[in-house]
Amino acid sequence: MLAASTHHEHHFTGSAMVRDLVIGMSDGLTVPFALAAGLSGAAVSTHIVVTAGLAEIAAGSIAMGLGGYLAARGDAEHYAQELAREEREIIERPDDERQEVAEVFMQYGMTESESVPLVEALAQRPEAWRDFMMRFELGLEAPEPGRALASAGTIAAAYIAGGLIPLGPYFAPVAVHTALLASIAVTGAALVVFGYVKGKFTGAAPVRSAVQTALIGGVAAAAAFLIARAIS
Amino acid sequence: MLAASTHHEHHFTGSAMVRDLVIGMSDGLTVPFALAAGLSGAAVSTHIVVTAGLAEIAAGSIAMGLGGYLAARGDAEHYAQELAREEREIIERPDDERQEVAEVFMQYGMTESESVPLVEALAQRPEAWRDFMMRFELGLEAPEPGRALASAGTIAAAYIAGGLIPLGPYFAPVAVHTALLASIAVTGAALVVFGYVKGKFTGAAPVRSAVQTALIGGVAAAAAFLIARAIS
Repeated sequence: MLAASTHHEHHFTGSAMVRDLVIGMSDGLTVPFALAAGLSGAAVSTHIVVTAGLAEIAAGSIAMGLGGYLAARGDAEHYAQELAREEREIIERPDDERQEVAEVFMQYGMTESESVPLVEALAQRPEAWRDFMMRFELGLEAPEPGRALASAGTIAAAYIAGGLIPLGPYFAPVAVHTALLASIAVTGAALVVFGYVKGKFTGAAPVRSAVQTALIGGVAAAAAFLIARAIS
Repeated sequence: MLAASTHHEHHFTGSAMVRDLVIGMSDGLTVPFALAAGLSGAAVSTHIVVTAGLAEIAAGSIAMGLGGYLAARGDAEHYAQELAREEREIIERPDDERQEVAEVFMQYGMTESESVPLVEALAQRPEAWRDFMMRFELGLEAPEPGRALASAGTIAAAYIAGGLIPLGPYFAPVAVHTALLASIAVTGAALVVFGYVKGKFTGAAPVRSAVQTALIGGVAAAAAFLIARAIS
């Protein structure tokens, strides 16, 4: 049991937090950067770029954070409902549930008779049986308590931190095109570093992750710049 | 086998597509709406609101679509690597792998001797054994081929479709505050309908989903409006 839970740990808390940071930071670095670049293409003042940028950071961090919070709450409720349903079915329709356990193993080429000992072992432990059905029949993982709020806060904070980097140069008393060049330099460097670190954490090749992350930011900014310039 | 695969179908293609539509449409309706409301608060012209809005839609759809594509590609590669590793371990360290199968079942309260028949049954079918380890030890699902590209396209298209709704009124030759009121009405209605339909599809209570979706849009727009007004 100790070995099993040590093994399990690997997949959770740490990586959920890293995943939330990555989600918030990716969009936070990219979208405000591209929006500011786009508005620079339309030759508006740095004051308007800053106004639009901060409005975007507020909107984006709330949409992602609050949206993520409600989605996680919804998943937790869905899990609780399905858990109650499995508990009921184990009591009310045990034969159907036994058949469903056998079907899980038939997917792995086991015959019905080979799965009998396992079905019987589970049938003696209703809680373990229920948990088994949740994970192996329905593919649902038990949500961590408090994860929804932590996740929302992490995503929103990462979005804000990421978004302030490309916006920084526009606060300086310089021409909008000068600020744009500084923003490209600062954000390009931030995207490369972020992509590299992200690759290290998620197990992807760091250099490739750095190139891909910078590429997304570059393509998004170029598209926003060209569209804004075309209609201005 | 037929029963098992019919059962499985439930969780995939359909819901992955719906999930992508929901992801793109949620942010597409919310962020451009809030950004446009924010800029209206700063009393800029409708032309600047449209420019910023279209730049945001370009940036957001690319960041979400391309980001999602590369993430899905990364997941597919991670899956392929782990698959190759499990295949190797089954050949090179079969005793360790047998122990790992037993540990999966020990999590469900089964004794080591109860899991023996199952371990032996899997050991006779290396491919099923490998697939079993992927899903039950590592919790990884086989990625659907072509999913990354379809997912990216669906998210980006939904973001663009969603984002054009709140922006529509600003195209009209009216004062920016008139456009803002029309945008609030149109987007509020769209968020309620979208939230309701989303609830129907995802199994959440439709009315509550409608209220929550409208709430996210309202909070994001109010925050963007207040920030932009404060600094203008």
